[in-house]
Amino acid sequence: MPVVAASPVAETLVDLFVILLAAKAGDEIFKRIGQPAIVGEILAGVLVGPVVLGWVELGETVEVFAELGAVFLLFWVGLETKLDDLKDVGRTAGVVGVVGVLLPFVGGAGLAAAVGEGREVIVFSGAALVATSVGITSAVLSELGLVSSASGRTILGAAVVDDILAMLILGVAVGLAAEGGADFTALAVSAVLAVAFVAFFALGGTRLMQRRPGILKAPRFSESPLLPAVLLCLGLAALSAQIGLAAIIGAFLAGMMVAETKEQHPIEEEVAPLYAFFPPFFFAAIGLQLDLGAYASWETLGLLVAVTLVAVATKFVGSFLGALPLGRREAAIVGVGMVPRGEVGIVIAGIALAEGAVSDQFFAVVVGMSVLTTLVAPPVLRALAPRQSS
Amino acid sequence: MPVVAASPVAETLVDLFVILLAAKAGDEIFKRIGQPAIVGEILAGVLVGPVVLGWVELGETVEVFAELGAVFLLFWVGLETKLDDLKDVGRTAGVVGVVGVLLPFVGGAGLAAAVGEGREVIVFSGAALVATSVGITSAVLSELGLVSSASGRTILGAAVVDDILAMLILGVAVGLAAEGGADFTALAVSAVLAVAFVAFFALGGTRLMQRRPGILKAPRFSESPLLPAVLLCLGLAALSAQIGLAAIIGAFLAGMMVAETKEQHPIEEEVAPLYAFFPPFFFAAIGLQLDLGAYASWETLGLLVAVTLVAVATKFVGSFLGALPLGRREAAIVGVGMVPRGEVGIVIAGIALAEGAVSDQFFAVVVGMSVLTTLVAPPVLRALAPRQSS
Repeated sequence: MPVVAASPVAETLVDLFVILLAAKAGDEIFKRIGQPAIVGEILAGVLVGPVVLGWVELGETVEVFAELGAVFLLFWVGLETKLDDLKDVGRTAGVVGVVGVLLPFVGGAGLAAAVGEGREVIVFSGAALVATSVGITSAVLSELGLVSSASGRTILGAAVVDDILAMLILGVAVGLAAEGGADFTALAVSAVLAVAFVAFFALGGTRLMQRRPGILKAPRFSESPLLPAVLLCLGLAALSAQIGLAAIIGAFLAGMMVAETKEQHPIEEEVAPLYAFFPPFFFAAIGLQLDLGAYASWETLGLLVAVTLVAVATKFVGSFLGALPLGRREAAIVGVGMVPRGEVGIVIAGIALAEGAVSDQFFAVVVGMSVLTTLVAPPVLRALAPRQSS
Repeated sequence: MPVVAASPVAETLVDLFVILLAAKAGDEIFKRIGQPAIVGEILAGVLVGPVVLGWVELGETVEVFAELGAVFLLFWVGLETKLDDLKDVGRTAGVVGVVGVLLPFVGGAGLAAAVGEGREVIVFSGAALVATSVGITSAVLSELGLVSSASGRTILGAAVVDDILAMLILGVAVGLAAEGGADFTALAVSAVLAVAFVAFFALGGTRLMQRRPGILKAPRFSESPLLPAVLLCLGLAALSAQIGLAAIIGAFLAGMMVAETKEQHPIEEEVAPLYAFFPPFFFAAIGLQLDLGAYASWETLGLLVAVTLVAVATKFVGSFLGALPLGRREAAIVGVGMVPRGEVGIVIAGIALAEGAVSDQFFAVVVGMSVLTTLVAPPVLRALAPRQSS
């Protein structure tokens, strides 16, 4: 009908509108039936995605919106987190991070070995089961008001450790696939860089903010601290991604830094609309990536069930054991909270596919496992939580 | 250094960070030297773009951010506009819109005819001079607190008329280029559709909101009216673009509708962060599109000067004459306010280039004219404004 065809930008506007509308509707419906809102948002993505209605595909721009969704989510969580709170649970979080990575790696690699796969698939299979999507858990914890509980803080600390280890394992896997051997010098440099990055901003950054809480709102900089805070968030997220960590690690560190400034409260109010706008794209995008057609064979379905069971069991047991010093109930919350693989599992499967190291079936199974673990954890967390806030 | 190469999404995060940082810096610097902030943001785009530093290119995602920048800008302006205020200046705005389109069209087409161009180039040349970037003027009016002045309201109303006429002229131009003849039935349908769209939401939409001001905040819909309001904005923007109008027309109508609800004030507070976050991408993207290398010949430079002079003179005179009933000073503000071609001129030049109807030189000249008219108007508007608010 229009005399000039709609531009690609105009088409993307429609996609963004459809995704946001569907996610918001899923959110409202799930809240009303007493289920976690983010599950409704993920299923909304499945609904409008290629599987059911086919209205929206995951293009480059929607992926960036999804990534910014995770970034603003973790920035928000960081705003609610003080470094001192993390220090209290530091040792436990470290143990949870390490054991919660080792068991799933052994489980995933063992399963691949058991069905007779080669070395590359074995390593990628282990890597795919390692990752934790702290974005998903954070959203649920936030919904339940548990971010600053002992279990919440342990999950956040463990997620940072988890992400550094996952990066290294992925680095080994990609090295094996690409050149037939991992470059252990490069890996060591990456590890040092990652730890230095986290330590520098978690310790030095927060201290700087404590000493100069007005730095974001200095009269010669800006009338509102919002854009300086958002720039810090985007900058650390981008830097974090550049050194091989997840962008959300940088966003979380930026949030912790801003949390130390005295303007914390006005900033939370000002960040809230960005926190309302972007994260629905993150959750819906997880659903958008599901392709139900890929599970049409019994073999694939069987693999999916086996991988999902291994993924849930190993992550839960590893994290639960690591968190036992917090008591059984808190340890159970930590165990369940670490289970969702979310977008991280999907990203790793995508890298493995792009490297030509694994089959389409492997990709479909890991994506399915990521979505299933992500859908299962929130209702269980809700049931385990001491008080329900909504 | 990282063991896994950064993904395209991670690269885009860097681009977004660089653009936002540069735009914010340009904004601050220009405010401090007493110049319009948006000029600083556009020049920041020139600085980080291909011309000078080459750090950022205008990719698909950055284009979408720029478009959303314009969308949230006009949504914000709509929030500050009541339908009744527009009705007061309706007739004047209509005359400004029509005369302010006719003179530039004749000027642009005449110039092309004078240098011996063919029919297609003549029509596109006229079309490229017609458009007004109300986004630019709105931002300056908003900075000066003039959105609800008589001249501000006249500009907004005229911009809607202007955009409908520009769409039709562009339709004729594309028809001539593509099939050698314009489809006047389709054009008539488009015109009716555009007028019906604007009338339906401007009149019916605002009336609905007046009668049911709680509709965005109904207890069965949402705890905060922000996402419903943003969805209305995105939805009307997408619809507007689908029927061939600018997306910002829909966003402006959505803002006017939301302005009628009683929750207007909390909504403005909640929209403010989105209004702070997205528009810098819109302004910087205009600068990103400039390619100074294209003006290396005297012939192109001469054409650029001629086209820019014609563009400024015809738009100013046409709009000034149309707005004379408001008095000379207000009419001068309207005349200057309609001058910036901004992104609209660039989009039309891009369509003409894509249709194969014009040369690279034509494209470069129109882009240069669009940027120059956009940079010239804000300081003049500031000087003409009755009181400077900052």
